[in-house]
Amino acid sequence: MSPSRIYLDNAATTAPDPRVVAEMLPYLHSLWGNPSSLHTVGREARVALERARKTIAACLGAAPAEIFFTSGGTEADNTALRGAVASLGVRHIITSAIEHHAVLHTAEALAKQGLAQLHLAPLDAQGFLDYEGLETMLHELEGPALVSLMHGNNEVGNLIDLNRVGHMVRARGGYFHTDTVQTLGHYMYELHKMPVDFIAGAAHKFHGPKGAGFMYMSSRARVQPYQTGGAQERNMRGGTENMPAIVGMAKALELAQSTLVADRAHILELKKLLMQQVQARIPGISYNGGSADLNRSLYHVLSVSLPPDPAQEMLLLRLDMEGLCVSGGSACSSGTAVGSHVLEALYPGSERQGVRFSFSRHTTTEEVLRAAEILARVAVPVLV
Amino acid sequence: MSPSRIYLDNAATTAPDPRVVAEMLPYLHSLWGNPSSLHTVGREARVALERARKTIAACLGAAPAEIFFTSGGTEADNTALRGAVASLGVRHIITSAIEHHAVLHTAEALAKQGLAQLHLAPLDAQGFLDYEGLETMLHELEGPALVSLMHGNNEVGNLIDLNRVGHMVRARGGYFHTDTVQTLGHYMYELHKMPVDFIAGAAHKFHGPKGAGFMYMSSRARVQPYQTGGAQERNMRGGTENMPAIVGMAKALELAQSTLVADRAHILELKKLLMQQVQARIPGISYNGGSADLNRSLYHVLSVSLPPDPAQEMLLLRLDMEGLCVSGGSACSSGTAVGSHVLEALYPGSERQGVRFSFSRHTTTEEVLRAAEILARVAVPVLV
Repeated sequence: MSPSRIYLDNAATTAPDPRVVAEMLPYLHSLWGNPSSLHTVGREARVALERARKTIAACLGAAPAEIFFTSGGTEADNTALRGAVASLGVRHIITSAIEHHAVLHTAEALAKQGLAQLHLAPLDAQGFLDYEGLETMLHELEGPALVSLMHGNNEVGNLIDLNRVGHMVRARGGYFHTDTVQTLGHYMYELHKMPVDFIAGAAHKFHGPKGAGFMYMSSRARVQPYQTGGAQERNMRGGTENMPAIVGMAKALELAQSTLVADRAHILELKKLLMQQVQARIPGISYNGGSADLNRSLYHVLSVSLPPDPAQEMLLLRLDMEGLCVSGGSACSSGTAVGSHVLEALYPGSERQGVRFSFSRHTTTEEVLRAAEILARVAVPVLV
Repeated sequence: MSPSRIYLDNAATTAPDPRVVAEMLPYLHSLWGNPSSLHTVGREARVALERARKTIAACLGAAPAEIFFTSGGTEADNTALRGAVASLGVRHIITSAIEHHAVLHTAEALAKQGLAQLHLAPLDAQGFLDYEGLETMLHELEGPALVSLMHGNNEVGNLIDLNRVGHMVRARGGYFHTDTVQTLGHYMYELHKMPVDFIAGAAHKFHGPKGAGFMYMSSRARVQPYQTGGAQERNMRGGTENMPAIVGMAKALELAQSTLVADRAHILELKKLLMQQVQARIPGISYNGGSADLNRSLYHVLSVSLPPDPAQEMLLLRLDMEGLCVSGGSACSSGTAVGSHVLEALYPGSERQGVRFSFSRHTTTEEVLRAAEILARVAVPVLV
């Protein structure tokens, strides 16, 4: 990436921390054994694999036996949802219209196969969870439900109260899965104290490498494997483990948590600064979902809404030409012609243009000021 | 790995080629964009992703649109088998008792769910496919069958004739999946001329990195995604692509194929040398499956069979203590207490001890001579 470029798309992916890459290199150069091999070369890898598991478990207040490595967040979500339906007697999945496609498309696939019935939890006008509505929904369903609601929304940033949802779900004998892909490394978890059964993580969202993720599964919710094959991951996931990336992921989570408090303060200031700057410069700007609610949204995500503009499809391209990397919604669906399903769910038929800014601990005040200047320069003329 | 150690477990995993690692590093250091992002940082990654796809397609005589990246061979096998049942009207899966668990356990899972009926193709006493028996089996089944038979067996090395099986399957309107995890980089493929619908590959078996694999899917066999989520891989596989590993995989396959003919000649000589040495030194030694048949088995795998020995469980450990890394069977199940399902299928109840040697292009004559010497020294005293 060119150094003059401003990268404010950290919800899509983050730059691997050089200390993470340094940790990975031995596993590419010399410690390349297969951790399932019983000889010395394999055992060297196995030791590193279990050390990574312990590190991640310790970061999250979980037991190592509750951490299962996957190829990423999507695989972790698939494992949890499909496993809950296959093994836990779940016939109802409650999720929401603004979930990531890794959850939404998986729940839809299960519904299409006739394996579970899909229910969308009610949201308020800003996309915040209607807790009473969820409770009513839970009461009306027969048998254990799986509730899958992400901790922090990847597009508009809305947070949910994990404890409140979890206790509600447990009280009805259900299971709670939360996609924490956008929150791991940004928020602290004490999983052994929380009424949560499954979480999903992806290393590349917290300055780790692509290709590694994990599922946390509580000891009360044991499911059958999703990816069948060899006996890896204590028979929970066939396939040779991606050693360099797993070791890098553990390092990345450790690093993120070690400076979390200071980084959070820094990033929150950047978010406030950007809000102040764009409000002052861009007439008619507003915010999507709960993004402007500093207490109830991700501190590293700001989703702005610009008035309709005949040339709006070109906006992201023009911002990119000016050196600003931001996104319209989730990267995972931006390869397609369709717009953001999250914005469409919250603002059906709206022609306003959404722009998502997402920060990291590496983002500087200078970059945010330049980003606001670029957005104002590019967006304002076309608004007139 | 200590330099004095002799690593003859290349069927479990191989050392990444330093040229592969060099190719990967930029994607960890600076080109870390998400290939689904539309801005410059994302597009840099997208270009590399599609270049890797073209390289792999060109290596295999396939079209780029027929290559789908996965996290490894196991995911590719799961995608093909589960997809064929979900999308191609397949109600019968024909496989064999000596397949890798990525296929066998997946087929068993589909059978257990009542989605397909499982049939085991007949094998002869050495574990070679009984082609006439397979043909009879195909004739007796109603509707399209999926035949899943690996090109080269990972434990005993038996090869199958892909064209002969493929034409037989096509003549009956079925689909042919072949797990080529052990053969890619060791054998040449011209997929556009071959009656094969699905193949599976894993980079770490041909001096590429762990964490990347791919599925080839012919244009006549289009299936629904296995891992649901975002729109990646042309809607065939949700999840951010493991860019460094994918780029490394393409380089690794290119490198393997560029010296394949010379490497094959070198490795075949090593196999013959090892056979000659162990036969001369170890009374009662024999070979498992078709491993000794130089024309019909993998040239980089030799599976030997030692007479029963009360201390045999210690044999692999003692070889390792002498600096020789070999395996008893597939690494993927060696974490478990059970022995090799392949040897058990071929030699039910046998108490003979299997030792698999597997070579790479980096293996030297000197290493093979030392390996034979170590095996003789460690195994012979306990045989007396």
